Formats: sequence, structure tokens, C-alpha cells
Amino acid sequence: MGKRLLVIGGVAAGPKAAAKAKRCDPEMEIVVYQEEEEISYAGCGLPYFVSGLIKKREDLISRTPGKFAQDGIKVLRNRQIEEIDIIEKTISGKNLESGELFEDHFDRLVIATGAQPIRPKIEGIDLGNVFYLRSIFDADEILQALKSDKITDVVIAGGGYIGLEMAESLIHIGKKVTIVELAPQILTLFDDDFAGLLRQYLEKKGVKIYTSEGIEALRGSEGKVTQVRTAGREIEANAVLMSLGVRPRVELAKKAGLRIGETGAVWVNERMETSAEGIYAAGDCAETTHLITGKKVWVPLGSTANKQGRVAGVNLCGGHAVYPGVMGTAIFKVFDFNVAKTGLSMREAEKEGFHPIQAIVRGYDRAHYYPGEKESTLKVIADQETGRILGGQAIGEGPSDKFIDILAMALHGKMTCKDLANVDLAYAPPFSPVLSPVIVAANVLTNKLEGRVRGIQVEEVREKLSTSKETFQVLDVREEDEVKRKRIPGSTWVPLWKLEKHLGELDKKKEIAVHCESGLRSYKACLKLQKEGFENVKNIDGGILCWCDDPESII
Amino acid sequence: MGKRLLVIGGVAAGPKAAAKAKRCDPEMEIVVYQEEEEISYAGCGLPYFVSGLIKKREDLISRTPGKFAQDGIKVLRNRQIEEIDIIEKTISGKNLESGELFEDHFDRLVIATGAQPIRPKIEGIDLGNVFYLRSIFDADEILQALKSDKITDVVIAGGGYIGLEMAESLIHIGKKVTIVELAPQILTLFDDDFAGLLRQYLEKKGVKIYTSEGIEALRGSEGKVTQVRTAGREIEANAVLMSLGVRPRVELAKKAGLRIGETGAVWVNERMETSAEGIYAAGDCAETTHLITGKKVWVPLGSTANKQGRVAGVNLCGGHAVYPGVMGTAIFKVFDFNVAKTGLSMREAEKEGFHPIQAIVRGYDRAHYYPGEKESTLKVIADQETGRILGGQAIGEGPSDKFIDILAMALHGKMTCKDLANVDLAYAPPFSPVLSPVIVAANVLTNKLEGRVRGIQVEEVREKLSTSKETFQVLDVREEDEVKRKRIPGSTWVPLWKLEKHLGELDKKKEIAVHCESGLRSYKACLKLQKEGFENVKNIDGGILCWCDDPESII
Repeated sequence: MGKRLLVIGGVAAGPKAAAKAKRCDPEMEIVVYQEEEEISYAGCGLPYFVSGLIKKREDLISRTPGKFAQDGIKVLRNRQIEEIDIIEKTISGKNLESGELFEDHFDRLVIATGAQPIRPKIEGIDLGNVFYLRSIFDADEILQALKSDKITDVVIAGGGYIGLEMAESLIHIGKKVTIVELAPQILTLFDDDFAGLLRQYLEKKGVKIYTSEGIEALRGSEGKVTQVRTAGREIEANAVLMSLGVRPRVELAKKAGLRIGETGAVWVNERMETSAEGIYAAGDCAETTHLITGKKVWVPLGSTANKQGRVAGVNLCGGHAVYPGVMGTAIFKVFDFNVAKTGLSMREAEKEGFHPIQAIVRGYDRAHYYPGEKESTLKVIADQETGRILGGQAIGEGPSDKFIDILAMALHGKMTCKDLANVDLAYAPPFSPVLSPVIVAANVLTNKLEGRVRGIQVEEVREKLSTSKETFQVLDVREEDEVKRKRIPGSTWVPLWKLEKHLGELDKKKEIAVHCESGLRSYKACLKLQKEGFENVKNIDGGILCWCDDPESII
Repeated sequence: MGKRLLVIGGVAAGPKAAAKAKRCDPEMEIVVYQEEEEISYAGCGLPYFVSGLIKKREDLISRTPGKFAQDGIKVLRNRQIEEIDIIEKTISGKNLESGELFEDHFDRLVIATGAQPIRPKIEGIDLGNVFYLRSIFDADEILQALKSDKITDVVIAGGGYIGLEMAESLIHIGKKVTIVELAPQILTLFDDDFAGLLRQYLEKKGVKIYTSEGIEALRGSEGKVTQVRTAGREIEANAVLMSLGVRPRVELAKKAGLRIGETGAVWVNERMETSAEGIYAAGDCAETTHLITGKKVWVPLGSTANKQGRVAGVNLCGGHAVYPGVMGTAIFKVFDFNVAKTGLSMREAEKEGFHPIQAIVRGYDRAHYYPGEKESTLKVIADQETGRILGGQAIGEGPSDKFIDILAMALHGKMTCKDLANVDLAYAPPFSPVLSPVIVAANVLTNKLEGRVRGIQVEEVREKLSTSKETFQVLDVREEDEVKRKRIPGSTWVPLWKLEKHLGELDKKKEIAVHCESGLRSYKACLKLQKEGFENVKNIDGGILCWCDDPESII
């Protein structure tokens, strides 16, 4: 007889661990316990199921219990596990259909209990048409309400990935959507400049956004929500989607006496072993390590869950596999914008004690002469002291996914900007500019590291323009047609090629921040100004690309 | 006064070196000498200019002499340089417009003379309508002929990138196209399985292809080509495109006494310095290092030329930059297929003394349930002894460029398959399956390294099926509908789920090669067979994906 493996949780990490274990040790007896009626479904696909892009519910199910049975894995659904005895190696629980209690024993156990949405304790939270989107049943519920109720106005609480994906889905099916976010920006894992670009885009698509405003109460009538009250206003809404994030489901592990990490998720080592022998945890309930900071983090993602499930499956059969950790890579699509990140943001890097510098460039997907061009704005961040790449962000209709994957690999390879400037990426006109935007950014960073020209972030420019006009000036070196489209209020305009003749118009004693479209011409202008004796010259990171429209900036 | 920099060659590396030098040292006097009438044009865009996809000739010109002048760089066109005196630091040449001779002196010199097409010494090579495609003037000539002559049938000599790109361009404008290749396969830098997939695709698109057939002579009438004679046949053709590759233009450097490398290109070190002080070479005329083998190679590519030009520009101003070398990354598009490679092929790896193993998987661009899926077939190669990734190939309508860029970065990071299996790539349903195909391939390689199941290449299967039927059998474990579409002739068919019951039909003593669609089910079948006492079990790399149609295989 083989060893007996029990798996608690049947969505992503659990089924993966079970399948891998069966391949590693075909003798193993395996039972997967799942609390819900469905197993092995694609949680990440739910927003697209709500929007109707994915038509058939069954398309979201990767493997049915029958498929698992074919591989010799038993799946028991509607089973709620209530206790794990780590000494006796037993679990006990309840059959949610029959109400019967049961017990089972194990040689190996995988805990893959996932995560659950945060439910704030506010007035009206139990009203009808207040939704979450975590499980396939949540999606069913939303679809049911959209069909039967007259839902016209939806408030989304939380400006993270799920909230933004759902904003698109709901706009797509004709709803009015308002996002309410407690933080000063949506997309808090990104820097404010890139979050600003996305906000501007979403507003053009008709999404209303309020930041720095938490939801304080929900009001209703006849048991259903009708109004959302924030610190600043009251918003009419006949449905609310709470997407304030998730937290790991660790109650079972905690009760069993397993170690819970400082992140609040189940503590595991690189082999996905918990603090008790023979017991593994994987997926959204487990913590992991951030490979740049070396710190424990909790980053629940489907791709991570699958990798961790595999590692647990190998190890519990006596093999040796490790899951070293994450880089903080994330991506999502909202309307036609591809929004992606890896590593640390500027803000995160500063918090971790680095001295980050950034390059922001236009990220084209093909040679300039090859028709059909798409573009993302690309940011690459490096540490000023070591030149090591720390992270990147990309946003736009271009290949953000490709840029971020390249940068994630650079992070895994512990590359510096100089290394990155010479990588041999695939170039032909339909696929990339002759120098990949990633390489262009690496070159900009190298220039900065060598101290040729210092950078300044748009936020600082914005602040100095309003507070330090006496000592600060902005120089715009673009051409006339560009300046007509958008301009930084209060800037002085001198096209690069006229700069020589107009130097007298600029004050050598004031700090001068120069910009063009994205940075090359302003870089040349900075060199020129420094040569002419200007002492405090800075190049605006990302130029006009990262300067979000506000009413005054349109001329 | 600043130092005087002369640049010989004005297409890619030359202008880049000049522009970078001017930014590093604005005092420098810079003159670019260009033999042709045009400078700074996009050689890689020429096939798309011929096909009409790129409509305006000027779109191919990145920077005009006027633009260079604005930056303080002088460009002299129609100047043929005939001699370099490395002791006196002078160059001399001829003004091709006026016929006048001239001389110039330098403190620093960049040689960027590029490459030229190979012209075979065969009968009829000087006939009219025999074309090359290297410079923008070659493209002009082809377009002129297509306009004025009744060209219906074109023979392309050479099945490399340019030949294949041009095949598409010519089919696109209604020509009959035949490719003649001396080697046993087109696309000789790829393994024969992937070259086979491309050949099959091109033939479906109407391209005739003859391999193992060199062109022996061209016949003509009234001064224009009418027929191509190969070892095997005579082909009617009223135009011929010779794309047999290029060779570096090193005559000038050689005559000057500069060291020529073993590759036949100008020898340079990592700083792009030639053997003479103050003289640099960059771009298609210079050699570089292959970062996996450590050997000197000559790989002329536009992206490399740009990077090398930049490095030369920094160093000649007294800065410090290095260009370590290439990974052998290459990509091109032909019809809707994206064809890309990095690192070594199986064949190249074997030649270099590695013991390569490969994984071939389906490379989807999104989650299976997200509509609009595109797919490339992806191969990843690793060294059996160390697990180190050695290379990859991708072909199909899917994101070959992204896969190959990720793999190129893995090569730069000297990753093993175990490292690659855990990289944190960007996942969301519109961008990738939950596990990137690159990661799936890394997992397959890890399984192979651990010796669970050995692989066998399709070519070996094909050979053994025809020579060793007594001792060799092929088992197909797919479902009925799949088998109906395509099948390996002579294979035994037992769906995976029926395998247990039909073991008796298989001969335990014979070698058994198992396949499914791409490898997962056959992997499970192999484990099963090994457990049942089959001694010589192998999983066919790439399964039916890599089995090219031949008349017998369609049932």
C-alpha cells in the first residue's frame, strides 16, 4: 500500500499538488477535500465571465472530478474540514450535503485553503446586491442579479486589480461605474505617476473615480442597497462590489497549532513544508519570500499557487524541489491598457532603504516604420549605488507583458543597468524597435548613474511649480506642434534647436527642470545647459508622457 | 579644439557611434563618410518596402544629414574611402560625384563598413533581373523591375531569413515563388524539426521549396534571366533573388593592417577597439563573442550594430563601456508565423560538446478559456549534465518573440531548468496560461534530468520506423478524434485511459516510443509502462506537434 495524501482545498494549489504527487508516486492514495461544489476552476477568469467575454461557465473549469478519478485521485466536494490533528495525523469535518461528520487520516497533508475577501464592518454591509468576487459562485450571484434586477449604477469599493477589471466588465455591459478608493491613488502597488496615467485613461472610458475616500456606510431600501456614503459624498448605486482585497484563510492551520508567519499567512519554508512534519501548505493561504528584499511576503496569485503546488507535490513524495519566492510580478488588462509591474516601485524601493533612480521611456512594440504600432509607457528602476535593476512598470496598449517579463528575468539574473543595456533580445521590425525599449531605459539609467544628468520626478516638479516659483523653472524643448497639444503650465518653451540663441531668457541661478516628449531631447538640452554654466539642471523623468492632464495644462 | 572623429559607414553602427560620441563629448569634431547617397536607413525594413507594406521610402530613413547637422555632426555622402593610414592617422578616398580625391585626418576612427551579399561565381550571374537585397538601392532596383518588367516567377536562392521574408513579400504581390536551398533544410540555424514545421507552413502558403539543391547556372535571353538550373531541375524564372548570405566588408581594414579575426570579420575587443590604438570597429564588419560557447562569432544584426556603435561612441570619448557579446538571438516573421531562436540549437549544442536534451510544448499566448488564443510551438534546450539552459526556438502565430526574449534573459542569467521553472512571469488570463509555456518546458526538462522518462526526437523515430520495425514500436495514447486528424504511420493506438487493459497488445521487449499531442499524456503513459516492466520506454519530444505531414501520415 502506498502512503495516504489528503489535500484540503480544490481550486489551484491543491489539485496541482495532488496531480504532481500522483505522477511522482503512482502508489500514493490521494483524496482532495473541497468545501465548494466546484473544483479546479479559474478564479482569474471570473471578471471575463461576468462581462460575457467567456460565454460558458464550464470553460472556467480546468478539470472535473471525473478527470481526477481517471488519474486515480479521489475528489470529495461539499466537505468542510473543521480540524487537523497534527499529532494523530487526522482531519475531521462535515459533509455539507448530508450534514454527517467524518474523519480521515493522512501520512501527508497539503493545506491549500486559499484566501477570502475582506468584509468591512460597516453599516449596511449585509444588504442585498452587495457583492464580492472571489469564487465562481460569487460570479454566479452577480450574473443572476444583473439578469433579474434593474442594476444601472455600480459602486466598486477598492481600486486594485479586481476592482479595475470589474470596472471594465461592467462598463462593457452598459453599467455606470464609480470606483471609491481609500488611498490617495488607485493601484497602490504602482508609483503615483503610472497610477495617474491609468486614472486619466479610465476616466476617459467613463469610469468615475474618487480617491482618498473610504466607504463609511451602505444605505438600502427593501433589503437592497441604494446608496453608498463616503467621507465626501453620497453616491446612488443599486449594486456594490466590495473588492478591498483578500486575506489568507488560516483559521484551520492556526487552530491545529501550525506556525503562522508575520504576514498573517501560513509559514512555510522553500520546500512548502509547514512547521509540522509531513504537512505542506501552498497557494493563497501560504506566505513566500520577496526575492529582492529577502523578506517574507504574502502575494496571492494563481501562477504562484500552481508553482507552489507542484513543489509541494514533489517534496511530499520524497523528492526535492524548492520554490524560492516571488519578484512581485503582476499584470492585468483594463479596456485596451495592459498594466504590469515587477520588482519594487520607486516608493517601495525607498522604503526598503535603496536609493532608486528611474528611467521612463516610450515602449513601442515594433520598428517606427512598420505599420500598426502600439505603445506602452515603460519605467525601469535601478539602485543608484550598485546599478542593480530593482523593478519596472509598464502601462498602455503596447506589449507591457513582454517588457515586464524581460525585467522580471533581469531581476532573477540580478542584473545591473549595464548588463541590461547589452542583452541580446529578439529584433526584427514587426516585433521591436531596433533597440528594445528595455535597453533604451537601461541606457538612460546608465547615463544617470554616471552622473551626466540628474532626474526629477513629475510629482516634485508639480509641487515646486506651486511652491517655489522664485527658485525653480521648467523648460520645454519640444517643437511647436507638440507644445500645442499639451503643455506644463508655467513652463518656458524653447525648441532644442533654438536653445543656443535663447539662453539669455533663462535664469542660470534658478533650478531648471527640462522636458521634451520622453527624455532624449531634454537630455541633450541638459548637457548643453550644464556646459553653459547652469548649475542645477534636471531632466524630468518621463517628460510630458507622465504629466497627467489637469484642466490648466491643456492650452 | 576638440578631438577629431571620423566614421566610415553611415547606416547603423556608424551614425550611432557618432551620435553617442557627440553627446559624451560635445567638443568633438565629427565627420561621417558614407559611400552611398543615403544614410541611416533601416536595412531590416527592406522586405516590407518591397511588399508595399511600408509605403513611403522616406519612412525607412531614420535621420537625414540635416538632422545630423543640427546635432553638430557632419555627414559626407558619396565618399568612397580607399585607404586608412593607421600610423599617420589619415584616411583617403574619392568623391563619387565629382571624382575628386580627398584626404582627412583623425584622432579617433570608427570603421563601420558593414557587410555585402555573397555573389556566387556561376554562369549567368550578371544577367538582368538577378537581384540582391542589402541596401535601399537594391530595393529600389527590385521595385523598378517589378513595375516595368513582366515578372511572374521568382526563384530565391537561399532559405535564410531574408529569403523567407522576401518569399512572403513576393507571394503577397502575386508572384510565384520557388526557394532553392543547398543545405538539406531551410533555416539552417534551427533544428530540422522546427525547420520542417516552417517548410510545411510555407508550402501551404504556395511557396515551392527545393532543399539539398544548389543553383548551378542561370540562363537568360536578351540579357535577362529566364531559367535557373539546379542539380536536380530547371526552373523557369524571370527574376532571381540571390540571398545566400552576406560577408563582412573588411578590405579597407585588412589593407590598413588591422587584425582580422578567425571569423573573417574585423577583430575587436569588448570595448570595440581594433588592433590599432584610437581605431574602433562596430556593426556588421566586426566580430563578437558568443556568450554560451565563449567563441568568436560573426553575427551581423541591426540591433547588435546599434549596441556596438554606442559602446564605441562611449569609449572613443574616454568613457568605459563594454559589449560582451551575443546569445545568437534572431527572429523574423513570415506570413503569420513568428519564428525565433536564441542560444544554441540541439545540433549546435552537440557540436559544442554539450549533451543537450529538449522539451517541446504548446506555447499559448493566454489562458485556455480566454477567447482568441494564438499558439507557437516552443522548444527549450538544456544541458543534461548541468541542467543549464542552452537555447530555445519558437515558431507559430503565438508570442514567439516573448518566449525567446524570456529565454535569452535566462541565458544571460546562466539559469538552470530548475531556476527557470520558478521565475515570476506576468500572469493574467489575457496574457499567458497560468504557467507560462516557458515554465512548463522547464518542468519537462527537470523531469527528464531526473531521469524519470527519456526523450526521443522525431527524426530518430522516423528512422527507426523504417529500419528497425522488429525492435521498435510507436504507441499513440490520444483520443479518437485526434487520431483521425493525423497519425504517425505504423503506430499502435491505445487512448491513455484504456492503456491498463490493453497492455497485452504491446511487446515488452521492444523499444517503445510513446506520443500524444504534445507530451503530458504520453509522459503519464511512459510512467505507467515503466511500472509495468517495459524496459526501454521513451517519450517522443513534441509529440504529433512536431511530426510533419507526409502523404502517408494523413489517414
